[in-house]
Amino acid sequence: MKLLRVGPAGAERPALLDGDGVLRDLSALVPDIDGALLADDAALALVRTVAASPGELPVLDAEGGLRTGPPLSGIGKVACIGLNYHDHARETGAAIPQEPILFMKAPDTVVGPYDSVLVPRDSEKTDWEVELAVVIGRTARYLSSHEEALAAVAGYAVSNDVSERAFQLERGGQWDKGKNCETFNPLGPWLVTADEVADPQALGLRLWVNGELRQDGTTAEQIFPVAEVVRYLSHFMTLRPGDVINTGTPAGVAMGFPEPKPYLRAGDVVELEIDGLGRQRSALRAA
Amino acid sequence: MKLLRVGPAGAERPALLDGDGVLRDLSALVPDIDGALLADDAALALVRTVAASPGELPVLDAEGGLRTGPPLSGIGKVACIGLNYHDHARETGAAIPQEPILFMKAPDTVVGPYDSVLVPRDSEKTDWEVELAVVIGRTARYLSSHEEALAAVAGYAVSNDVSERAFQLERGGQWDKGKNCETFNPLGPWLVTADEVADPQALGLRLWVNGELRQDGTTAEQIFPVAEVVRYLSHFMTLRPGDVINTGTPAGVAMGFPEPKPYLRAGDVVELEIDGLGRQRSALRAA
Repeated sequence: MKLLRVGPAGAERPALLDGDGVLRDLSALVPDIDGALLADDAALALVRTVAASPGELPVLDAEGGLRTGPPLSGIGKVACIGLNYHDHARETGAAIPQEPILFMKAPDTVVGPYDSVLVPRDSEKTDWEVELAVVIGRTARYLSSHEEALAAVAGYAVSNDVSERAFQLERGGQWDKGKNCETFNPLGPWLVTADEVADPQALGLRLWVNGELRQDGTTAEQIFPVAEVVRYLSHFMTLRPGDVINTGTPAGVAMGFPEPKPYLRAGDVVELEIDGLGRQRSALRAA
Repeated sequence: MKLLRVGPAGAERPALLDGDGVLRDLSALVPDIDGALLADDAALALVRTVAASPGELPVLDAEGGLRTGPPLSGIGKVACIGLNYHDHARETGAAIPQEPILFMKAPDTVVGPYDSVLVPRDSEKTDWEVELAVVIGRTARYLSSHEEALAAVAGYAVSNDVSERAFQLERGGQWDKGKNCETFNPLGPWLVTADEVADPQALGLRLWVNGELRQDGTTAEQIFPVAEVVRYLSHFMTLRPGDVINTGTPAGVAMGFPEPKPYLRAGDVVELEIDGLGRQRSALRAA
């Protein structure tokens, strides 16, 4: 299923993109798309049954200026993996990590897939990162196998791990400082349930800036695949329903270009897509 | 005021420790102690009025095995400052930071002030850190003065920024990996409103392990005082009501001892206190 949330920021309603591409209102069935829903087998089964013949669900007018919010509400944490693509590690000149590199984004950095992204004040190095986001559906602690890890995954989404490289790397030692600026994590448009993603390690990811293709990768290049990332993280933190993991970005970020590096400016437009997970479009604005 | 939350984990009710040290139920007045309350001047004023002559509030039986939860619900993010005490920077051999070092803990690491702390599996370097926690009451972005920063502070609490040093420093480059283990942020017992803290830079902080004094510092040793920490962070992230900032720890952590360093083991008991903010007591257990 392709689940999403539509409406004004903070007042989104749950919705479904049905098999014919029609946007349908789920709010009579479930209160929201959140960790509670993802962990509730009965509620999910009900949505799945209705989704299979969605004719009874009210149609939402997608043309009428209806905003799309992030496809998940009540996110508990956003755990992020750094340098997780062979080609991205090469472009940044970094060594291949021996184990996953973890950093954190605050949940309030998450915005909708067509919302503006704010270039922070005094920023000169705002950068893009198309990433496969994993959405957790089962509590996961100290998992021992990749099977258990994949069983904890509720679904996937497109994520832009927006990063300010000077804040991240030149302002005192921890990456988080360049990862947590306001609006720095557009997510969506959809939360695609895991049953619709046959192989999370065979997804093409692409990103354009002002129409120019900048990233064109595949999750086959991931150093640590989704199952290993989830298993590994569960030994360092408890993953809970509604948590999100950004699994790293392929080559092609601004930081990897020769000087002058094409960092983002107000007025730029970033578009991202991942096979089967939909497409984002964010306009950059000054904070 | 000394605000707290009592009851089973996930089902705490708001309470007040009145001027006579009597625990009183606030649940008829406010639904919870959270960012919404801290940002709501009218609701806070009501609580303050009732607290001034609390006789009408029901008394809670603190002796009857009533658990104390964290004093704040719905925490949005926990931003943490590293190496923020002159004496702690010296003991770890680190240079004095030129600007605050930021890392992040997930809100679900927060537990009550007497809850168990779990030593992670395969941990050999679980460490303690008594810290002054700042609780945000006003949205703060791009603040320009220390006055604005302090106006955004709703109150203060005792925080234990529990840290696994091998995970933090020896497992791939970012501190967050050793900061986000389950139960790694005991908070409370109280949220003390800012009007009761005359000077946040004149608070003694102490921590004992198994009755032995290990940390005995003062916030006067902070490299970046509370007002500067809040002002500074507001340029890298939006601070919102219900966010928490751990402002760093003074000297005396296990990592700063000569070998063999006295890292925490299951069965140990850690006690922490800060002048005017109360006292925690956490027993260590195996995860």
